Amino acid sequence: MSTQPLFNVAVVGATGAVGEQILKQLAERNFPIAKLKLLSSARSAGTKIAFRGESYTVEEAKPESFEGVQIALFSAGGDVSKALIPHAVRHGAVCIDNTNAYRMDPETPLVVPEVNIDMVSEHKGIIANPNCSTIQMVAALKPLYDRYGISRIIVSTYQAVSGAGARAIDEMLRQSGEVLAGNDPKPDILPVGSLPVKHQIAFNAIPQIDKFQDNGFTLEEMKMIRETKKIMNDESLEVTATCVRIPVVYGHSESVYVELKQDFDVAEIKSLLSDSPGLVLVDDPENQRYPLATEAAGKNEVFVGRVRRDLSNPRALNLWIVSDNLLKGAAWNAVQIAEHIAQRQP
Amino acid sequence: MSTQPLFNVAVVGATGAVGEQILKQLAERNFPIAKLKLLSSARSAGTKIAFRGESYTVEEAKPESFEGVQIALFSAGGDVSKALIPHAVRHGAVCIDNTNAYRMDPETPLVVPEVNIDMVSEHKGIIANPNCSTIQMVAALKPLYDRYGISRIIVSTYQAVSGAGARAIDEMLRQSGEVLAGNDPKPDILPVGSLPVKHQIAFNAIPQIDKFQDNGFTLEEMKMIRETKKIMNDESLEVTATCVRIPVVYGHSESVYVELKQDFDVAEIKSLLSDSPGLVLVDDPENQRYPLATEAAGKNEVFVGRVRRDLSNPRALNLWIVSDNLLKGAAWNAVQIAEHIAQRQP
Repeated sequence: MSTQPLFNVAVVGATGAVGEQILKQLAERNFPIAKLKLLSSARSAGTKIAFRGESYTVEEAKPESFEGVQIALFSAGGDVSKALIPHAVRHGAVCIDNTNAYRMDPETPLVVPEVNIDMVSEHKGIIANPNCSTIQMVAALKPLYDRYGISRIIVSTYQAVSGAGARAIDEMLRQSGEVLAGNDPKPDILPVGSLPVKHQIAFNAIPQIDKFQDNGFTLEEMKMIRETKKIMNDESLEVTATCVRIPVVYGHSESVYVELKQDFDVAEIKSLLSDSPGLVLVDDPENQRYPLATEAAGKNEVFVGRVRRDLSNPRALNLWIVSDNLLKGAAWNAVQIAEHIAQRQP
Repeated sequence: MSTQPLFNVAVVGATGAVGEQILKQLAERNFPIAKLKLLSSARSAGTKIAFRGESYTVEEAKPESFEGVQIALFSAGGDVSKALIPHAVRHGAVCIDNTNAYRMDPETPLVVPEVNIDMVSEHKGIIANPNCSTIQMVAALKPLYDRYGISRIIVSTYQAVSGAGARAIDEMLRQSGEVLAGNDPKPDILPVGSLPVKHQIAFNAIPQIDKFQDNGFTLEEMKMIRETKKIMNDESLEVTATCVRIPVVYGHSESVYVELKQDFDVAEIKSLLSDSPGLVLVDDPENQRYPLATEAAGKNEVFVGRVRRDLSNPRALNLWIVSDNLLKGAAWNAVQIAEHIAQRQP
C-alpha cells in the first residue's frame, strides 16, 4: 500500500541458516523495507546475496553498522548479540534477537505472536525470539491454556540437526553416506560444537542438546522449562523436558503430555486447535494422518496431532507437535514480530 | 558339564531377524541342546543354516513338527504362534513365545527374568516374551519399584526400524540412499506393513507403531501400558506411552518420567541401578556419557543414564533407557527364559 511507511532493516547473521530463512520470509511477506543492510562476521563479509532481484554485499557487523537502522534482526550467536545489540539500541533500532542472550532478561519481552504479542509494546529496544523447541510447544498449548488452564507439561523432543546449524546438517548427511557405504562415520560437530566429545548422529539418537547444567538437565531442556513459564507468564506452570537430537534435517517433533486444570472434551480440544491461528490439526488415525517432520519442513505453521485423553489421568492429554525449527522456530517467528512492529509504528 | 541334561529345542521363525539372534544366543551361551529343529514358513523351508559348525535344513513348521520337542522358541508372528503353539504344548514342549499372541492371556506368564523369573514356574506350557519396548523399560525400573514403589510412568520412545523386521531395515537404508542422491524416497513398508498408508522413515520421525486402537493410542503403546502392569503385577500402576519410529537400525531409546512413592536420593538411585543384574549405568554428563543406540547395538544389557530428579516434582525422576531391541528386547530375553527352564528341569 502506498501509505505504508518503509523501514531501514538490518539482518545480522545474514549468511547463516536462519539468516537465509529470514531474508526469504522478508521477501515473501513483501516486508516494507526502505534500506536493507546485510551484516555478518568478518569471515563472511563480502558475500553477495540476492534479495528481491537486487544484489547485496554482506558487511562486517560493527557497533557503527546500526546508524539509521530501525529494525535489526539478530541470529549470529549469543556473543554477537551481547556485543552489538546495545549499540543497535543506542542508535534507535528495535532489535529482534534470535539467540539466548536476552531471553531471560526481565526487561526483555520473550514473544511468540500467537501467545503474547501484547508484550511487544513493553520492549526497551530488544525483543527476544524464544528457543525453537519452546516456540512450537507454547504456540500449540496456548489455546488449551486459555480455555482450561494448564498445571503441568512433560515433553520429550525429537529435534532436527538443522537446529545446530548448516555444518551439523552436512555432518549428518556425510555420516549417513559413510554408514551406507559400510564405513565408520567420523563425528566432529554434534552434539555440541564447542565441547570435546563427539557422537555419531547418523542412525542414532543423542540425548544431549547444548551443555549440561549442574542439575543434570541440558541448557536446551532448561530453556524449554524457563522460557515456557516466561512466555505463558505463569511461574506456577510445572514443566519437564528431555531434549534429543535425531537424524532429521528440518522439523522438530515433540511428544507432549499436558495436565489441564479442568475437565475437557477431546472433540472440543480438536476444534479449538484447528480454529487457532498458526496451528494446523493433522489428526486422522483411521487414515494414518498425523504431523510428520518431512511434511512440516518448509511450512510456517505448527502441526498438531495424536490428540488423545490420557488413560490414567482423565484431566491429561497427549499430543504430537511438529514444526519447521528454522521457520516458526526461528525466522518466521522473528519476521512476525517485525511485522507487528512495522504495523504499530506510524 | 557332563551332568547337564540336554534338551530337544525347536526354533520357529529361524530365518527371521529375531530367529537369527536366538540361534546366535543359543550358540554363544552353549545352550544344552540334544537335538535342534529349525522351523519356518513353507516359503523359507529348505534354507540351510549353520549352527555350531553343523549345517541344518529349515523345515516347514507344522502341527506334527513338535513331536519330541521339549523347548520351543517362537518368533514367526502372532498367527503362527496361535496356530502352532497348542500343538507344541500337546506334544509336551514348553513354548517361549516372542509374539503378542499370548501376552495378555491370564494363564500365560509374561516374563522378564530380572523382574519376575518366579512366574516361569506357573506356566501351563506357554511363557510369553514381552514387547521389546516394554522389556527394557521394566528391567530398568524394577530396582526402583522394589526400593521406592512407583505410582506413574510417562514414556516416549525412539524405536529402531529393526523392530519392524529385516524388510523395514532394508527400506530405511534404501530410502536414506535415495534422499542422499537427491531423489524422492518411495515408502512401501512402514509404518505398518499390513496397512495401506506408507510414510517415509529416512530422516523422519513417525508417531505410529502398529495399528491405532479406538482410544487413539496405537497397539504398541497399549502393549507398553498393559504389559508393564502385568509384569510388575500392579494394576494400580499408571502408565502413559507415546511410541515413535525413528531412523535408527538397532536399539530402542526411551525418555522416561517416573513418579516414585517415597523420597529418594539420586546418588542412591544411581548405585541401585549400577548394582542391578542386566543393567549398565552410563551417566557422566561432565564427560558427555549417556546411553546411545549405536553403542547398545549388539549388547545384551539395558543401558540407563540421564538420571536426574525432576525440577517440579521432587518425587519424580527422569531417565534415558536404551537397549538392543533384537537382543534384550527379544532373542536374549527368550534365551534367558529357556536357560531358566533348562536349569529347573532334572
